[in-house]
Amino acid sequence: MWGGPVRSGVPAGGAVPKYYLAKIEIVGLVDELGEGAAVPSERELAARFGIARETVRQALQELLVEGRIRRRHGRATVVAGPKIVQPLSIESYTEGVRRQGRTPGRALVALESQPADPVQAGHLEIEPGAELLHLERILLSDDEPMGLESTFLPAARFPLLRTDFDPGTSLYAYIRGTGVTFHRATEHIETVLASPREADLLGTGPALPMLLLNRVSWDPQGRPIERVRSLFRGDRFSLVAELGG
Amino acid sequence: MWGGPVRSGVPAGGAVPKYYLAKIEIVGLVDELGEGAAVPSERELAARFGIARETVRQALQELLVEGRIRRRHGRATVVAGPKIVQPLSIESYTEGVRRQGRTPGRALVALESQPADPVQAGHLEIEPGAELLHLERILLSDDEPMGLESTFLPAARFPLLRTDFDPGTSLYAYIRGTGVTFHRATEHIETVLASPREADLLGTGPALPMLLLNRVSWDPQGRPIERVRSLFRGDRFSLVAELGG
Repeated sequence: MWGGPVRSGVPAGGAVPKYYLAKIEIVGLVDELGEGAAVPSERELAARFGIARETVRQALQELLVEGRIRRRHGRATVVAGPKIVQPLSIESYTEGVRRQGRTPGRALVALESQPADPVQAGHLEIEPGAELLHLERILLSDDEPMGLESTFLPAARFPLLRTDFDPGTSLYAYIRGTGVTFHRATEHIETVLASPREADLLGTGPALPMLLLNRVSWDPQGRPIERVRSLFRGDRFSLVAELGG
Repeated sequence: MWGGPVRSGVPAGGAVPKYYLAKIEIVGLVDELGEGAAVPSERELAARFGIARETVRQALQELLVEGRIRRRHGRATVVAGPKIVQPLSIESYTEGVRRQGRTPGRALVALESQPADPVQAGHLEIEPGAELLHLERILLSDDEPMGLESTFLPAARFPLLRTDFDPGTSLYAYIRGTGVTFHRATEHIETVLASPREADLLGTGPALPMLLLNRVSWDPQGRPIERVRSLFRGDRFSLVAELGG
C-alpha cells in the first residue's frame, strides 16, 4: 500500500550487505507471484539469482519476520497477504477484526485469581494484595493466532465473571452488560521481542518482533476498570489511528 | 513501569532455551545496577552465572534490541533508561520531545524535488508526475538519533519552502506559518526491520525492529497536506495514545 523501503534501502556510501541485495531480488519475485503463491525453495532461489544458500536464508528470514512471506504448517512457504489493520480505539478486538470481514475468536489460556502487586494495585487504584482476576487469551483471526491478551480486573467489581463470562466471547460486551461504561483509556505502544512462552502460545518463532500495547481504561467517574497487556504479532498485525487537530 | 514479561516468559511445558534463562539472570542484574551503570563483560557474565559465552552473547543481543542495555560509542555497554514516550497526536516531534524535558533536533539528509508516483499522487490528490518536495531528516533527542522522517509535500502548495524553511526547525511550525491548518490525520503503525541504509543513518545495528508510522494529514477543507513516513528506533522509542469512549 505504501510502497516498500526495500528498493531505497541501500546506503548512500559503503557496501550493501549481500543478504539485502538478495532480499531486493526476492521481494521483486514475491510481488510478481502474489498472495498465497508458493515461494521457490532456498535451493531454487540460490540458483535463480546466483547467490549462496546461506545468503538466501538470511533474506528469507527477514521477509518472514516482516510478514512478507509465511510458513504454512511446517514446510511450504507462501507469499503473505497484507497485515491486519486494527483501529486504535476503545473497542474490542472482536469489533476491529469483524470490520475487516474476518472471524474473530479467542482461546482461553488462563482465568485465575491472584493478589494485586503494588504496581497493579496502583494502576487499578485498589489496595495491594486485593484480589485480581487475570484473564489470558489467545486472540484469533480466522483461526490464526494474532495476539495474546492479558487482562487484570479488580475481582470485587466483577464478582460473577468467573461463573457468568464465556471466555470465547467479547470481554468488553460482558463488562458493558454489567452496567460499566468505558469512558477513556491510555494505550502505550512499543515493539518488543516475544518470549519463548509467548512464541509457543502464538505458534511463531522465538524473538519475533511484536507490537506490545499496555492499556488502562476508566469509567466516566474516573475509576480504573482494567489493565490490559496485549501482544500482537509484528508480522501480521498493524494499527491505525485517526488523529484530530 | 509495567513490569517485564521476562520472568513469566517461560513456556508451561517443554524446555526453556538456555539463552532465555541467561536473559532472566542478566535482567535481574541490570535492574539492580540501574540506568547508566556499566554492564559486566560477556566473559565476566559467563563466569558469574556459569553459562557459555555464546549463550550470554545471545541474551545480550536481545537486551540490546529491546533497549534494556545500550552500547556507548563502540565498546562500553551500559544499562539503558526508559524508552522515550511520544504522544500519538497531530503535533510535531519537537513538541513531543520538549514535553519530556529533552532537546529535540533534526539533521538534514535530503531536500529534493521529484515527480509524484501514482501511489503518492493518489494519497496527496495531485496529478501523477506533479512536483513533490521530499524532505528527509534524522530526528534527534539530546543529540541521539531517534528516528528518520520522510515528508512528501505538493511543491505547488509550498513554493517558498526550499528557500524559506530551515530544516533544523519544526516543519509543522513552518507549514502553519504559511496559513495552512492541520485538521486531522490518519496514522498507520507497524513494526518493520531497519534497512541497511536506515540503520546506517540512525547508527544502529541492521535489522533492528523499528516502529514505522505512515501518516497522511488533511486541512479543514479535506485537502491532503502531506504524506509522512517516520521510522523510530524500537529500542528507544514508544508511543502513547489517549482514547475516548
